[in-house]
Amino acid sequence: PSAGLEVCVSPQRVDYMFGIVGVPVIEVAMAAQAAGIRYVGMRNEQAVEACRLYSKFSARPSSLEAIPSVIEKAVRSSMYGRPGACYVDIAGDMVNATVETICTNLVVSCCPPPPVALADHGAITEAVSVLKAAKRPIVIVGKGAAHGRAENALREFVEMAGLPFLPTPMGKGVLPDDHANCVAAARSRALLQADVVLLLGARLNWILHFGLPPRFDPDVKFIQVDLCPEEMGNNVRPCVALLGDINAVVTQLLECVRKEGWNYPTETEWWSTLKDKITANAKISKALAVQSALPMNYYTVFHHVSQLLPRDCIIVSEGANTMDIGRTMLNNYLPRHRLDAGTFGTMGVGLGFAIAAAVVERTENKGRRVVCVEGDSAFGFSGMEVETMCRYNLPVVIIVVNNNGIYSGVDPGTWREMAKMGDLTSIAPPVSLLPEARYDEIMTAFGGRGFLVRTVEELHSSLQLSLSDWERPSLLNVLIDPSSDRKQQEFPWLTRSNL
Amino acid sequence: PSAGLEVCVSPQRVDYMFGIVGVPVIEVAMAAQAAGIRYVGMRNEQAVEACRLYSKFSARPSSLEAIPSVIEKAVRSSMYGRPGACYVDIAGDMVNATVETICTNLVVSCCPPPPVALADHGAITEAVSVLKAAKRPIVIVGKGAAHGRAENALREFVEMAGLPFLPTPMGKGVLPDDHANCVAAARSRALLQADVVLLLGARLNWILHFGLPPRFDPDVKFIQVDLCPEEMGNNVRPCVALLGDINAVVTQLLECVRKEGWNYPTETEWWSTLKDKITANAKISKALAVQSALPMNYYTVFHHVSQLLPRDCIIVSEGANTMDIGRTMLNNYLPRHRLDAGTFGTMGVGLGFAIAAAVVERTENKGRRVVCVEGDSAFGFSGMEVETMCRYNLPVVIIVVNNNGIYSGVDPGTWREMAKMGDLTSIAPPVSLLPEARYDEIMTAFGGRGFLVRTVEELHSSLQLSLSDWERPSLLNVLIDPSSDRKQQEFPWLTRSNL
Amino acid sequence: PSAGLEVCVSPQRVDYMFGIVGVPVIEVAMAAQAAGIRYVGMRNEQAVEACRLYSKFSARPSSLEAIPSVIEKAVRSSMYGRPGACYVDIAGDMVNATVETICTNLVVSCCPPPPVALADHGAITEAVSVLKAAKRPIVIVGKGAAHGRAENALREFVEMAGLPFLPTPMGKGVLPDDHANCVAAARSRALLQADVVLLLGARLNWILHFGLPPRFDPDVKFIQVDLCPEEMGNNVRPCVALLGDINAVVTQLLECVRKEGWNYPTETEWWSTLKDKITANAKISKALAVQSALPMNYYTVFHHVSQLLPRDCIIVSEGANTMDIGRTMLNNYLPRHRLDAGTFGTMGVGLGFAIAAAVVERTENKGRRVVCVEGDSAFGFSGMEVETMCRYNLPVVIIVVNNNGIYSGVDPGTWREMAKMGDLTSIAPPVSLLPEARYDEIMTAFGGRGFLVRTVEELHSSLQLSLSDWERPSLLNVLIDPSSDRKQQEFPWLTRSNL
Amino acid sequence: PSAGLEVCVSPQRVDYMFGIVGVPVIEVAMAAQAAGIRYVGMRNEQAVEACRLYSKFSARPSSLEAIPSVIEKAVRSSMYGRPGACYVDIAGDMVNATVETICTNLVVSCCPPPPVALADHGAITEAVSVLKAAKRPIVIVGKGAAHGRAENALREFVEMAGLPFLPTPMGKGVLPDDHANCVAAARSRALLQADVVLLLGARLNWILHFGLPPRFDPDVKFIQVDLCPEEMGNNVRPCVALLGDINAVVTQLLECVRKEGWNYPTETEWWSTLKDKITANAKISKALAVQSALPMNYYTVFHHVSQLLPRDCIIVSEGANTMDIGRTMLNNYLPRHRLDAGTFGTMGVGLGFAIAAAVVERTENKGRRVVCVEGDSAFGFSGMEVETMCRYNLPVVIIVVNNNGIYSGVDPGTWREMAKMGDLTSIAPPVSLLPEARYDEIMTAFGGRGFLVRTVEELHSSLQLSLSDWERPSLLNVLIDPSSDRKQQEFPWLTRSNL
Repeated sequence: PSAGLEVCVSPQRVDYMFGIVGVPVIEVAMAAQAAGIRYVGMRNEQAVEACRLYSKFSARPSSLEAIPSVIEKAVRSSMYGRPGACYVDIAGDMVNATVETICTNLVVSCCPPPPVALADHGAITEAVSVLKAAKRPIVIVGKGAAHGRAENALREFVEMAGLPFLPTPMGKGVLPDDHANCVAAARSRALLQADVVLLLGARLNWILHFGLPPRFDPDVKFIQVDLCPEEMGNNVRPCVALLGDINAVVTQLLECVRKEGWNYPTETEWWSTLKDKITANAKISKALAVQSALPMNYYTVFHHVSQLLPRDCIIVSEGANTMDIGRTMLNNYLPRHRLDAGTFGTMGVGLGFAIAAAVVERTENKGRRVVCVEGDSAFGFSGMEVETMCRYNLPVVIIVVNNNGIYSGVDPGTWREMAKMGDLTSIAPPVSLLPEARYDEIMTAFGGRGFLVRTVEELHSSLQLSLSDWERPSLLNVLIDPSSDRKQQEFPWLTRSNL
Repeated sequence: PSAGLEVCVSPQRVDYMFGIVGVPVIEVAMAAQAAGIRYVGMRNEQAVEACRLYSKFSARPSSLEAIPSVIEKAVRSSMYGRPGACYVDIAGDMVNATVETICTNLVVSCCPPPPVALADHGAITEAVSVLKAAKRPIVIVGKGAAHGRAENALREFVEMAGLPFLPTPMGKGVLPDDHANCVAAARSRALLQADVVLLLGARLNWILHFGLPPRFDPDVKFIQVDLCPEEMGNNVRPCVALLGDINAVVTQLLECVRKEGWNYPTETEWWSTLKDKITANAKISKALAVQSALPMNYYTVFHHVSQLLPRDCIIVSEGANTMDIGRTMLNNYLPRHRLDAGTFGTMGVGLGFAIAAAVVERTENKGRRVVCVEGDSAFGFSGMEVETMCRYNLPVVIIVVNNNGIYSGVDPGTWREMAKMGDLTSIAPPVSLLPEARYDEIMTAFGGRGFLVRTVEELHSSLQLSLSDWERPSLLNVLIDPSSDRKQQEFPWLTRSNL
Repeated sequence: PSAGLEVCVSPQRVDYMFGIVGVPVIEVAMAAQAAGIRYVGMRNEQAVEACRLYSKFSARPSSLEAIPSVIEKAVRSSMYGRPGACYVDIAGDMVNATVETICTNLVVSCCPPPPVALADHGAITEAVSVLKAAKRPIVIVGKGAAHGRAENALREFVEMAGLPFLPTPMGKGVLPDDHANCVAAARSRALLQADVVLLLGARLNWILHFGLPPRFDPDVKFIQVDLCPEEMGNNVRPCVALLGDINAVVTQLLECVRKEGWNYPTETEWWSTLKDKITANAKISKALAVQSALPMNYYTVFHHVSQLLPRDCIIVSEGANTMDIGRTMLNNYLPRHRLDAGTFGTMGVGLGFAIAAAVVERTENKGRRVVCVEGDSAFGFSGMEVETMCRYNLPVVIIVVNNNGIYSGVDPGTWREMAKMGDLTSIAPPVSLLPEARYDEIMTAFGGRGFLVRTVEELHSSLQLSLSDWERPSLLNVLIDPSSDRKQQEFPWLTRSNL
Repeated sequence: PSAGLEVCVSPQRVDYMFGIVGVPVIEVAMAAQAAGIRYVGMRNEQAVEACRLYSKFSARPSSLEAIPSVIEKAVRSSMYGRPGACYVDIAGDMVNATVETICTNLVVSCCPPPPVALADHGAITEAVSVLKAAKRPIVIVGKGAAHGRAENALREFVEMAGLPFLPTPMGKGVLPDDHANCVAAARSRALLQADVVLLLGARLNWILHFGLPPRFDPDVKFIQVDLCPEEMGNNVRPCVALLGDINAVVTQLLECVRKEGWNYPTETEWWSTLKDKITANAKISKALAVQSALPMNYYTVFHHVSQLLPRDCIIVSEGANTMDIGRTMLNNYLPRHRLDAGTFGTMGVGLGFAIAAAVVERTENKGRRVVCVEGDSAFGFSGMEVETMCRYNLPVVIIVVNNNGIYSGVDPGTWREMAKMGDLTSIAPPVSLLPEARYDEIMTAFGGRGFLVRTVEELHSSLQLSLSDWERPSLLNVLIDPSSDRKQQEFPWLTRSNL
């Protein structure tokens, strides 16, 4: 059977398996290990049958012999076209069944990389002429650009054409956040005043305000680049639709721009506007970051964290304010080095993402740190997974930005007063969590490093210590002002119009 | 409201609406007519909620204001990427509701034609070199080539490259069935011995025997051309995958072949094999077609029908043997002039297809006839729709090939004997229908022309009369030998290995 | 295999199977016949997978050995508790598979009749005291009373307690429609003014106006009797809920009333009100029924039909006005002798119901006629099933009440005028069908009797002829005034407040 | 709005709300508190849309005005008939919408208790005569008896009739586990040899081995008592089916037995057999319980825990061996004082159950302790909920029975050896968790009491301390022999044939 599994499974080049054992999954996990697949046992799971609802492809093999081809189709479907999770449900009584002989047609070789399509040449020419006519162009770099590995072509294109760009949360790092053309720090202004947007593998969903007023100019023109035809025209009609692989299309644009010898001038009112706004916003952020009052605020924490993180670290993040403000304060410099709660804001994914990244990093051994930045409420969804990190000695650094609640909490004194008034289920604000909860002790309970952090100094020393330890995970429980968000309510990621 | 509807609906350029009225659909149908949309009232429908299961996109607008954009998305999704039906469920209480003012954002303009993608240049070059190395190449022309309007480029490509081709049932007519390079009459041989298959917009499903032995050579190489990335590699791993619009990709192949000045030689053993087989099969078919015994057999009927049909007629077909044998005997000469029960063999769609085609033809007024070739069982699924044809004076010609049953029936004498033996629900073969049922009288009941046809002469005269009448529908009830299929069991579409 | 089927299937006492053959259903149908099950081949079906959505229980046996127990559970679930359709999906590759040995645990005996529950004694006493205090009581007899075979106990209860009653459409016949206590002809008045309603196995859905004002008194009290606990309190809170088998509960009520020696007085204002209303309504109906103008109207048709139908006939009905007015004009005298389009008004079920009833009647041989009263639009949904009736010599009498449309149509002259004005898809009212369509010829096409009926005399003679023929089905195509419903719009079943 | 909520929500007498706040749930939680509902904020949730799949009733109100009646139907459906979870999905944009005026029909009063049905009198008589003829009868007390509050009638029946009984896991406590007639300690023997089983509100699912051999006598007769008709006959055909409310039916049985003056003799071979088996099993358990070797085994732990727990404590339990062995070793003495992972063995529910029980206990103030017995793996699914306990000062006592793994783990020394050998994801048994993980520190991290327990003495002292503290939750991390289960593999709940 192990030989069989090797033949059947390894062709799809599955290197890792994550799961929760139980009857009869134990046997599958053991057979996977025997076939050279690393098995990571987790602590929590969602109802598996429910996953089918959210899967791009789902199937239940009708016989033992059908499993290899179903697995191949699942693996292939997960990668071809728009990527997505796939679900294969194997009947329990198949797990311990055996195939008489390993016949040839059970050997299904691994699917090749996804096929690549190019945009229509005429549409490329048209897109470039729209860009050339633009007064206030911007490039928006989305998750599709990261997935399409468009970073090299894109850097060359942006630099040659001299265009300002900004990333979506999952597009961060395709180009470095500190690139000279990056105008992320003037995001709202850039979106609002742009007359032409080159949209690279990003959906016009709520994260981009659906591409509509009042956050966009009503006359803005979109050049939409996507590999999924059905995505074209969702919410806004593009003036040019470039259907194809993002990397291939950017390369086509690059060649066209190069041939025409065109670039957007560096001395324009648009560049001045954007740079002035960047400078002004930097000042505001800086002012918040250097505040010395205790407890610290979000900006102070992220300012110092960003200074210490290595450029090649992998940032995982989830939470409300934590993820929101972290997106603007923590730079990414490399593509596909960031994972967050994504389009649907699904809480509880962070620690799982971090574990997966750390397991892969251990195999690839590139010396990259995995840093997991969590809101305190978000951490609660799957906090027990720190045991998994400790069990496998995965040196993840978790930073819990702890404001005693969801969106905001209360300080310990106020909490004690409330507790005296009666039953807290009737009195406590529904957003409140236990003040100054010692999430760091969750980590020490399993043998990792834990730090309670109240000051900038403690933040520095504990983060440096954590980053220097490659044997164990660490958790920094960073206490911040529980009403921190209320003071900065004018700066949330999604609504700040004055930045 | 009519003005509103004009604004909201006509932008999507909907010209026809089909339905069954009832409360509150009457109002929708009347408003559609007021907005210039033609309404065709049908006689049967499937449970509408069930359609959702088979739809590419389904939605239920949450407010009156959301309807235009949902309709736009439904129309767009039905055409972009792989085409498919879409389902919009409008709550009953919205039908008679009114919008205060027609605000601008309710005006959703019609979506442009689908964006076009090209295949990767390197993959094109690779595909051509595979073709050049082929000893026994064939081109399979699928539904995707018809949908992608690839006919002009494809004809040039096939003729310049000198390649043999054959169509799938829904790819018939993209190139004329009597084209010199068409090897459909040697289909089984061509599939079995080909060493390279250029697959143009066709799925490797059961209609193409999944691309597997014993119907294909185990070492055959597939060059797969499709606009859907997830389709690539289904059932068989292609040696080259060309992702893109079928017409664009064929044009790329054409340019590459032209540049290289290559063509497949006309004097090869492969061409000799194919042509010999075509000649041999033609002889067999001819022998069956000229049999003068009565009742007639399938081949005789189709042979004579094919001689009388105009080249530009639209052929609709459904049934078991009727559709099967008709596919080989009735030629198509123009692209998108054929509709049949399709991949899933869904019975009951024929008359609806014919009505739709006839309504469009009336508007376009190109003088094309719609001919509907039905098995007797298939006709029963929606036979009442002849009333719809008569009601709207749609000059459809229906040919019911009547063998008294499903797959096969019994003759009237045998039936009478069985009836004497006891309760027919216990005795009659489940495949039997009433012998010599007068389906032609279904047509005369509503004022159309009906013909009972037993001989070649009757077939000729009634079909000529039907084709000359542009005012009324006709139905030819062609009685054939109820055991006809059993004699020819060696020639079904799917299994004939000796053709 | 046939022996196996006999063992496996017949224990559930399945006597009839209905279906549409195709690969691989042929084998199932033939095996069923071999096992003594009668097989009826139909002409149309709905997408089968969709049925699952509407089924009470659905399953797909995972192995051949599991089939008998799954079938047993499906049969049992369809009968126990609230009855409903069940769906079993047997994988195609199981159909021709064989079981090694018929082991004992494959023999699943037929499930016994459903278990019977009684209502709580205290609740019975309370219900009777509410009835005793009522000034204007009525009993509503629903489908549940028919299904629960409560007719004998109910007749005794109604007569002993002296209560007025009225049936829901599917409750018609549990007690005879001409019973002295039946106040169906004063339905609206009875519902509106009742102060206590004894609801026997009927849901408070739209057919009963949800039990709410303005069709009911806001202070009306409901005594709800149902076998389904979740039904209790739907839409209206009952003052007493009697959970149990309808027959058992009615028997409990009867015993309680008998013991207390109570009955509702015959000389009350309530009885006077109801009887006056019945008399007045009878006059109006009579006036409409005796109109001698041609074309006839609905009331004339139903008046004469009702005079000729035998008391024990089984009435199947579907349509809009046809079903609506027919419910009030065609009496039922026996329980479970009526089938119509039901709660959801599903069109197309009528001919199938009639075929099933006729097949059962042939076996039981009780000399009952099956009469199918159809609107012309409703008939179109499955009109081809007349071939099924002819094929099996099922002597169903179909009466198509033909008003040239859905709700209403136009006369032939008007239609010809419209046709001259241009394309009928733009001009014809969506509710119109072809005027004076010869649905009778659909029947003659397959060898049945067909009649075109324009006058009372023709109606009498054709119906008498049809009822005298036990060998063949008949169809009466009764042409009525196409604007008939517009004249009587004040009398639709659901809204007539003055009756 | 708060007034409105009070009107709308409190009629259904909802006292507690559990949830995870986020936009826009905050407002709902606050409005609920304002309306007097206690709100408990939790730390983890499952994908909510998925719940719909597992709900008895689900709905999405189509308007603000529809909410009260939908809530009423959800509450009612959850309690009427077989109880089950219900799901109401309220659209986000409704949360902050307001109703113009609180109209009367928005006021939906709380549904009354479920209606009660009785079994048929004849069936009762038949059941009693089957019991009277039994040689080896047993009563199985299921969850339905607990839900139906049948405890008083059942105790009287069992004692008067002198019948041996045993509970299912969720039926424990309906009668006290130490009742003289309880034969739970001879469960396997009782099931195997019984000739008549009176099944009270228990399903014949895997927990009862489907009622089939080899765990039951093939000729055993079942008297099935259930409130759900569709449950009757599932898996085994009962000889008598008593449909009705469990308490009502038991009362009927009691009256019948009393009237007949019958009881099952105390001096029978059956009683001797059962009592001998109980004595023998007690000896084996005792032997295991008193083993003094360290680490402790399951039996030792449960033996001592059971001695200290108060008779009225509420026991919550989940895990594999922990739940299994705990079911046999921890007695319940009161009905509805036990909650466990149930039929589907859903892990992660324990802490939520315990929180709910503790919140209710605080309100009712009956002085009952909530004790939560968890396997270490099970604890990991929702371990972060200890923060919830600490936040609201809920004095739950959690006992984690820690064997370093799922089913079984390895000791710290072995673990260290494995870690030296290479990557643990390749080497460690999939069932292993981190050895001697300090789950107790999860509790202390949030201010509760935590104990690391290795010996009987530590178990006694820490449990006594925990039970004496009514202000804070406690967690006992009880380290047992990680291979403990392997030694006792002959005693698992489901397979022990020798008990």
